[in-house]
Amino acid sequence: MARCLSLLLLCSLGAGVSVAAESSGQTDFVLLVHGGAGTITPESLDAEREAAIRQALDEALEAGGRILADGGDSLDAVQAAVVVLEDSPWFNAGRGAVFTAEGRNELDASLMQGHTRRAGAVAGLRHVRNPIRLARAVLAHSPHVMLIGEGAEAFAREQGVELVEPEYFRTEERWQALQRAKQAEQAAAPLPPSAYFGTVGAVALDRHGHLAAATSTGGMTNKRWGRVGDSPIIGAGTWADERCAVSATGWGEFFIRLAVAHDICARVAYGGVALRTAAEEVTLRQVPALGGDGGVIAVDAEGNIALPFNTSGMYRGWLRGDGARGTAIFHEPAPTP
Amino acid sequence: MARCLSLLLLCSLGAGVSVAAESSGQTDFVLLVHGGAGTITPESLDAEREAAIRQALDEALEAGGRILADGGDSLDAVQAAVVVLEDSPWFNAGRGAVFTAEGRNELDASLMQGHTRRAGAVAGLRHVRNPIRLARAVLAHSPHVMLIGEGAEAFAREQGVELVEPEYFRTEERWQALQRAKQAEQAAAPLPPSAYFGTVGAVALDRHGHLAAATSTGGMTNKRWGRVGDSPIIGAGTWADERCAVSATGWGEFFIRLAVAHDICARVAYGGVALRTAAEEVTLRQVPALGGDGGVIAVDAEGNIALPFNTSGMYRGWLRGDGARGTAIFHEPAPTP
Repeated sequence: MARCLSLLLLCSLGAGVSVAAESSGQTDFVLLVHGGAGTITPESLDAEREAAIRQALDEALEAGGRILADGGDSLDAVQAAVVVLEDSPWFNAGRGAVFTAEGRNELDASLMQGHTRRAGAVAGLRHVRNPIRLARAVLAHSPHVMLIGEGAEAFAREQGVELVEPEYFRTEERWQALQRAKQAEQAAAPLPPSAYFGTVGAVALDRHGHLAAATSTGGMTNKRWGRVGDSPIIGAGTWADERCAVSATGWGEFFIRLAVAHDICARVAYGGVALRTAAEEVTLRQVPALGGDGGVIAVDAEGNIALPFNTSGMYRGWLRGDGARGTAIFHEPAPTP
Repeated sequence: MARCLSLLLLCSLGAGVSVAAESSGQTDFVLLVHGGAGTITPESLDAEREAAIRQALDEALEAGGRILADGGDSLDAVQAAVVVLEDSPWFNAGRGAVFTAEGRNELDASLMQGHTRRAGAVAGLRHVRNPIRLARAVLAHSPHVMLIGEGAEAFAREQGVELVEPEYFRTEERWQALQRAKQAEQAAAPLPPSAYFGTVGAVALDRHGHLAAATSTGGMTNKRWGRVGDSPIIGAGTWADERCAVSATGWGEFFIRLAVAHDICARVAYGGVALRTAAEEVTLRQVPALGGDGGVIAVDAEGNIALPFNTSGMYRGWLRGDGARGTAIFHEPAPTP
């Protein structure tokens, strides 16, 4: 009965139904991925497109899951999963990134390793095929955490991180989205904010009990002035510590103003609340209260997970050491783990 | 006796002695400023230099304090204080900023209003005289929180924020510091990290009970690859919410990896600890445990303040509605409020 009431409450909040609020205790590793939250509706998503998106999410799970199953590192796993999503044209990161007002693609990404608190972040990239690989190089091979713009790309060249021509990122669909955004702007009839953004990300718990998080994005359609959202901001779009890892997707400005990823983990660490409670409080109450929307994926050191979102849909997938695995888009019933 | 033990403990930790751990209850407004923490020693600071630095800190207090005394807004007060410190050649922000490896000045800044959680941040500027003014324009006149590089400067032009030639920022002292850093690099004998950085910042509580924080910097001497530190990162170098405001200064990478400013406020909000306890735990334990150093200034909604630092000195000043006012540099005894 309590469970029903809780579910009703979640539905009334427009909550994404979390998959498995508590771990069974048998889980030895966990990988969650997301491909963005926004105005996805069953009507706007035909069967072919849905199948392609679910397949890309599944490939991301496969790439990261293989590393975790082999006893590998959570940081390697989240990076591998995000690389798959960056390479897919279906998501707003890497190939398929949205366009700026000037008709360019400008990419941001970050990742963080929980137990060492090492982190790497990059913003304002125009030629780096996989921004998350450059963020990893910053973490591993620089004394810094965050590099931006041309300087970051100079570091990419030094590190042998693959560069591509700007055309690599272009998809016709994103180009048309920019044209629609510009028309809406001229008509002073803006589209809903969630039509403009998207992100990919992953969080993982490995067999060593270590957590990691990674996030990558093309930012916001029609963005101007070198705008940077929450994805490359450690503490906003990405956070991992000893107990908790979070990757966010949504209207980045609100996620920065609430330090969403760190705030969820701080509520767990200092407030003693459950991961799911913390993730839902921030995503389903705090963010909408300011006027923002989006979602997060989160995992803690016990393997508890949460995937709340306050939008109509969030592309997401999960994989656990006990064999649970799946993908979802809308407010679908929670699979049993 | 307990107080003595506490003081001894602080000294053994290399702690900055906080000025007035708890408010008297009569304080109706508070302004704290800092001009950076690092390898300042009584030997390296001659009387003339010390007097000039204390005067600049006092002018910053005057500029912000006038606004607060008149019943003005804490966001206006922290901005006014930081503008004074940016305009002074003695601090690593605005005029007097340190040089990158390429011999340029690249400036970052951010500010945040607590009760609205509105924020503005800018990074990688080369022509904006007062980066904190541009951060304020981002907060007030853009739908975004963070703008970087040339895009941010295009926004500055649109907003009429003053631009200057790059030579404006140059001081001979900072240029010589770059030459020493390059020589040390060639000799593979790096200077202590704290010789490279510096920041200015302010936090305030106004008569309406509203909090704000602001931070501005030239970053790190000899920095490369578009490196960005904690100063423009909301949650790392700057944070303000309904209960707590923090501005940080130090080795930025560690402050990002610990989300220092937000973490201090989260410990207060969710852990129920006193502001000073939270600020000291993060600055004097967490940051050094990772290998970093620096300090923070912090104020809460009750007017409690903390100014801990784990370096040899931190340029700092304080002003309260009850008339307490002063500046300090080293581990000087705490003035009574």
